[in-house]
Amino acid sequence: MTTEKPLRIAMVGHGCMGAAHSQGWRVAPRFFDLPLRPEMALLVGRDASRTEASAQQWGWAEVSTDWREAVTREDIDVVDIVTPGASHAEIAVAALEAGKHVLCEKPLANTVEEARAMADAAERAAGRGVRAMTGFTYRRLPATTHARNLVADGAIGTVRQVRARYLQDWLVDADAPMSWRLQQEHAGSGALGDLGAHIVDLAQYVTGHHLTEVSGTLQTLVPTRPLPGNDGGAAERASVTVDDAALFTGRFDDGVLGTFEASRMATGSKNALQLEISGSLGALRFDLENLNYLDFYDTAAAPDRQGFTRIMVTEPEHPYVSAWWPAGHSLGYEHGFVHQAKDLVEAIAAGTQPAPSFADGLQVQEVLGAVSRSADKAGSWTPVR
Amino acid sequence: MTTEKPLRIAMVGHGCMGAAHSQGWRVAPRFFDLPLRPEMALLVGRDASRTEASAQQWGWAEVSTDWREAVTREDIDVVDIVTPGASHAEIAVAALEAGKHVLCEKPLANTVEEARAMADAAERAAGRGVRAMTGFTYRRLPATTHARNLVADGAIGTVRQVRARYLQDWLVDADAPMSWRLQQEHAGSGALGDLGAHIVDLAQYVTGHHLTEVSGTLQTLVPTRPLPGNDGGAAERASVTVDDAALFTGRFDDGVLGTFEASRMATGSKNALQLEISGSLGALRFDLENLNYLDFYDTAAAPDRQGFTRIMVTEPEHPYVSAWWPAGHSLGYEHGFVHQAKDLVEAIAAGTQPAPSFADGLQVQEVLGAVSRSADKAGSWTPVR
Amino acid sequence: MTTEKPLRIAMVGHGCMGAAHSQGWRVAPRFFDLPLRPEMALLVGRDASRTEASAQQWGWAEVSTDWREAVTREDIDVVDIVTPGASHAEIAVAALEAGKHVLCEKPLANTVEEARAMADAAERAAGRGVRAMTGFTYRRLPATTHARNLVADGAIGTVRQVRARYLQDWLVDADAPMSWRLQQEHAGSGALGDLGAHIVDLAQYVTGHHLTEVSGTLQTLVPTRPLPGNDGGAAERASVTVDDAALFTGRFDDGVLGTFEASRMATGSKNALQLEISGSLGALRFDLENLNYLDFYDTAAAPDRQGFTRIMVTEPEHPYVSAWWPAGHSLGYEHGFVHQAKDLVEAIAAGTQPAPSFADGLQVQEVLGAVSRSADKAGSWTPVR
Amino acid sequence: MTTEKPLRIAMVGHGCMGAAHSQGWRVAPRFFDLPLRPEMALLVGRDASRTEASAQQWGWAEVSTDWREAVTREDIDVVDIVTPGASHAEIAVAALEAGKHVLCEKPLANTVEEARAMADAAERAAGRGVRAMTGFTYRRLPATTHARNLVADGAIGTVRQVRARYLQDWLVDADAPMSWRLQQEHAGSGALGDLGAHIVDLAQYVTGHHLTEVSGTLQTLVPTRPLPGNDGGAAERASVTVDDAALFTGRFDDGVLGTFEASRMATGSKNALQLEISGSLGALRFDLENLNYLDFYDTAAAPDRQGFTRIMVTEPEHPYVSAWWPAGHSLGYEHGFVHQAKDLVEAIAAGTQPAPSFADGLQVQEVLGAVSRSADKAGSWTPVR
Repeated sequence: MTTEKPLRIAMVGHGCMGAAHSQGWRVAPRFFDLPLRPEMALLVGRDASRTEASAQQWGWAEVSTDWREAVTREDIDVVDIVTPGASHAEIAVAALEAGKHVLCEKPLANTVEEARAMADAAERAAGRGVRAMTGFTYRRLPATTHARNLVADGAIGTVRQVRARYLQDWLVDADAPMSWRLQQEHAGSGALGDLGAHIVDLAQYVTGHHLTEVSGTLQTLVPTRPLPGNDGGAAERASVTVDDAALFTGRFDDGVLGTFEASRMATGSKNALQLEISGSLGALRFDLENLNYLDFYDTAAAPDRQGFTRIMVTEPEHPYVSAWWPAGHSLGYEHGFVHQAKDLVEAIAAGTQPAPSFADGLQVQEVLGAVSRSADKAGSWTPVR
Repeated sequence: MTTEKPLRIAMVGHGCMGAAHSQGWRVAPRFFDLPLRPEMALLVGRDASRTEASAQQWGWAEVSTDWREAVTREDIDVVDIVTPGASHAEIAVAALEAGKHVLCEKPLANTVEEARAMADAAERAAGRGVRAMTGFTYRRLPATTHARNLVADGAIGTVRQVRARYLQDWLVDADAPMSWRLQQEHAGSGALGDLGAHIVDLAQYVTGHHLTEVSGTLQTLVPTRPLPGNDGGAAERASVTVDDAALFTGRFDDGVLGTFEASRMATGSKNALQLEISGSLGALRFDLENLNYLDFYDTAAAPDRQGFTRIMVTEPEHPYVSAWWPAGHSLGYEHGFVHQAKDLVEAIAAGTQPAPSFADGLQVQEVLGAVSRSADKAGSWTPVR
Repeated sequence: MTTEKPLRIAMVGHGCMGAAHSQGWRVAPRFFDLPLRPEMALLVGRDASRTEASAQQWGWAEVSTDWREAVTREDIDVVDIVTPGASHAEIAVAALEAGKHVLCEKPLANTVEEARAMADAAERAAGRGVRAMTGFTYRRLPATTHARNLVADGAIGTVRQVRARYLQDWLVDADAPMSWRLQQEHAGSGALGDLGAHIVDLAQYVTGHHLTEVSGTLQTLVPTRPLPGNDGGAAERASVTVDDAALFTGRFDDGVLGTFEASRMATGSKNALQLEISGSLGALRFDLENLNYLDFYDTAAAPDRQGFTRIMVTEPEHPYVSAWWPAGHSLGYEHGFVHQAKDLVEAIAAGTQPAPSFADGLQVQEVLGAVSRSADKAGSWTPVR
Repeated sequence: MTTEKPLRIAMVGHGCMGAAHSQGWRVAPRFFDLPLRPEMALLVGRDASRTEASAQQWGWAEVSTDWREAVTREDIDVVDIVTPGASHAEIAVAALEAGKHVLCEKPLANTVEEARAMADAAERAAGRGVRAMTGFTYRRLPATTHARNLVADGAIGTVRQVRARYLQDWLVDADAPMSWRLQQEHAGSGALGDLGAHIVDLAQYVTGHHLTEVSGTLQTLVPTRPLPGNDGGAAERASVTVDDAALFTGRFDDGVLGTFEASRMATGSKNALQLEISGSLGALRFDLENLNYLDFYDTAAAPDRQGFTRIMVTEPEHPYVSAWWPAGHSLGYEHGFVHQAKDLVEAIAAGTQPAPSFADGLQVQEVLGAVSRSADKAGSWTPVR
């Protein structure tokens, strides 16, 4: 049973990710036996009344309009950052220096430089027993964790090829309006940073290999979009300055070869994060649109019985599952956030480094940066570091 | 935003369904704007220490070892019954007579007689503004509710055939031990009551038609099982006295024809509640093992473009979905319980009858009873009433 | 390589099945090394000019308008019967008595009595080295034959449950016109004989068990249809006198339990012959709409790696496949007819009994007859013999 | 009905493709009403006895060991070339100059220069009414032709992105022996030419757009393989000098963006030619491992009913299908060859240019050549012409 000893959380930011993180903190101690009990102590947002409304909706005890309060208050143990990427570095570094454990949503930062400053701060803090974690929750689904375990156990032999793509379709309509997310000065990048970060992290996590060089292309398939508010008359259109499709090839250590695509223009795909790994003895396939399943091919099976086995990853033998429902009952998107909360609480209590670390988050940013540099050099191969 | 005006819940029972109902009460007000705020006030169980542990784990404020406390305390508004079926009637009738709203897990009771007493009590209570609801949560998944809406909108025309099955495999091992669930005196029936109840309710709910006669067969495919605790030596085996597979054919009103199977021996199927509806203008398919999807066939499409359309029921246009995550993000098993809590709270606040009512629950029991009677008469057609 | 020693075929009938049988005779010696070379010698049809056209299209050397010519000509070795069911018995018995090997399309006959006469004739002929075979070609797909081999090898342990259905949708439109196939006096039965025969044979073949009693229901969901030719004005409608949906439950020997559905009203299903077999150690699933695949569940796999393995039955290790294309290349519907021709030629050359025999075909008719009798007795259990 | 007027075919080569082409010539006139009747007149191979055996197996009337006989004989109308790529140019050019229509297996040649010579010869011949066709049969499956028709009809709007891959796994075993196909001097290239040619042609055919520049990578994942015949002792290994995986990104005309992968190391994929096309109004998906299906997404559907529609491309409304079986019956790999024979015969009879022309085949070779050049330049973007 979860202890009564509290771990007081302050969450900075209250957009969509705030709802998901709140659900993680709320639910984790109800299903897992945690060594510390998360308390949803403080919610920080710029707008006082909207922050108050979010706090009431999600169950945060207090509110503030200044993130520094989260960093300086003595009764706060963890700072959970769910703001847009541009503010991650300042808050996270301050929190770590103030001795707060930090959970930071992905991508770690908008630039490699900021990410590096965060990773440096995290390394210094670790020496003082302060923990930092990057929020790649797709690692924490039963199917993806099971995939990683199967690879680590040698079930597919030596990894040779990775196929990773993250396909969405919310920009297919060429008249979907312009927004800050489509402007480089505000968003940093487009599909690459938003979706590409996930597949880079997940591919590296599951295979246990890291990308060392990339060859990439960034494309803006719909180059202009109408400015919002122009009802009536011919809408004025402005330029989209980020990619809506990012394609890249990568080489991992040990000669593993990978293909990657991140697209917001993949008509009909709602949330299709697809990963396929080909190994010398087997293969694995995962698709976030069917997140309770993992397909596994085993060349050790009898030749007349080989095929992809569709494992329903809902059995007590599978990662995280025994805490939940009877065998065969589906989990959903939010359970990754519950598992993230659980794993972070356990790492803090145990005094161990949670994964993915800020260094891991930095390395993903470096990969994305190398893709951009490659795209600027006509797609030629470019080292990650 | 959910109001602060409280609706105090007492839950009687704390098995597996207790965890699911608790999650429903906990989470519903965080995502839906409810007119009353559920308070997890009192948890009732026979064993004091285990009940206390469950209450702490799930977040119930107080505990009791006597369900009558839930019925008699003035500060309780709703009695939520998640005990085994044999005790449903007594608790529910007492609660309704005491003016408490009641939510009762399915099946409504172990016998038609008990279910009828409950339905009668619910009807009397309704006259006093007291509400009663049967807990068929599979109705409340976005995909099943969407299916019902499509049928009601005429999207598949006149319903003609229903194929419903609920396949599990937890009894495939012939040496899985004997338990009370396999003994008629304790469990009432086997696959029929446990799984069959779900497919009868769901088929009727989605089609809008009711079964009027059935032709059925009950079978015990593994007739004896080892008594537990006989480690070492040849285990003594006892007779299984309930069905592990129930097969029946049914006629609904308006000439709709249905086939039904409930099995605990369907090797490889973990939780395969499958429903297929053939109509004069289209068809629908649902499978609980892929609960975010609904397949829809539309004969109005161009002949060269017809096929089953795999709708990912995760868009804001779909039932319940807009309260949750961005489009394309999966929900899981437990969300049916959250939606059940939401719908019951709204009905109580609005003073309307929630569905499924106890009368609906009774009718399902009558169907199951008719299947048993038919099985006793060599499978011949038997009226439900 | 196929020998030059000829086996001269006469085919009686030239409807749709005639095209498929012709393709079987034509193609079999080109891919398989046959001990006799089928010669498409004589095509028999009632209408001289249409028969001549078919013979030219399909490559038959001669034509006749009298089936007796096929039976009496000394240069004919095999009579292949693809006429409607009502004429099967007369032709087959005459051919067998004349010493011709016979291949007869399913169903073997329209009545059990005719089928029994045919089986008797076949048994007598067998004593003289004359062979008779019933044309259940769905047995002869690589996936179904592989399924049978897996069951026979014990891969799924003891068979316990069978789910078989054959779903089509060509009668969904209530204004599809009346035809002889919908009139009992001409067609014998509807979905039961046409589609039900296939699933009874295939379920028995793959499991190795035989149905001993059944409980069934026959339904005509659209009871009247417009008479053809009534263009303009309100079309006169006539009664459909055969079933368009047949539902039955069956008990096989050794306690195996089965459910069966044959429907011409399953909206969206074009040719969905689906078979699922649950055994004590595993399970199998087949669907004719994806005929190159077989799903196999193996409880002997590690618990965290279990699931249905989707075997693409296109490898040289699989039945019939090595004669065809490189691994991984799909076969289609017609290949069952090619394999049928091959297997019959080999049996004739070897002097062995081909399967399915006429006795097998008779037994399927007896099952269908028992379903009809059960339906006449309110669905009560009825012995096959 | 197919006419009796003959079209005499000589086929040069008798490997695996010879079997497929023979089946095409044999079967096409039996199902389609052709304006000329193909006669399998002459089979050419180097080894007399093996060629004789193939001719007898497949039904060719005469044999020769000299391809020049096919070119010079007056009674030959069509030369069908199924030899390895290195000999295509010499035979095809000679045949065209001799006034023979030519069908040439893909890839058109091993080098761009040879392909260009062939395309030039074809253009000259066309002026004299002599036809030349490249054998990309995957265009001629009902599903791929239907995909092209849907795109041409505007069903998915403006094409924006293409995802094409052809995944096989026959080289996964690192000890699979060395062969001429893995040596550049004999095979030209590896996965790129063998598998990449198919996806380049199919992507261009279905979209109606042509690749103009590419960025590519060629990789040899298993760089050495054992020499055959070294049974016993440590096998000597030799270098693989062709790619076993080819990855490339491409830009088509009109700004369409594409990703391509050809791999012989995709564990578990037997013949997975997968094509996905994202358009402004819809999307299409095809997979050769399920070749009777096409998935279609239509943004014009009601928002709550959108999803990929799985079209079973087996209805009379679909290309080529009405000549075959009743609706809902599957075709297989070989039917592409039958349709190829039909289309070529019809073009010859009509005096029109069959597609794909040699110019089309040349353009595919140019794309593959540009991929190789890009790979030699660190993956940088390289124009096709």
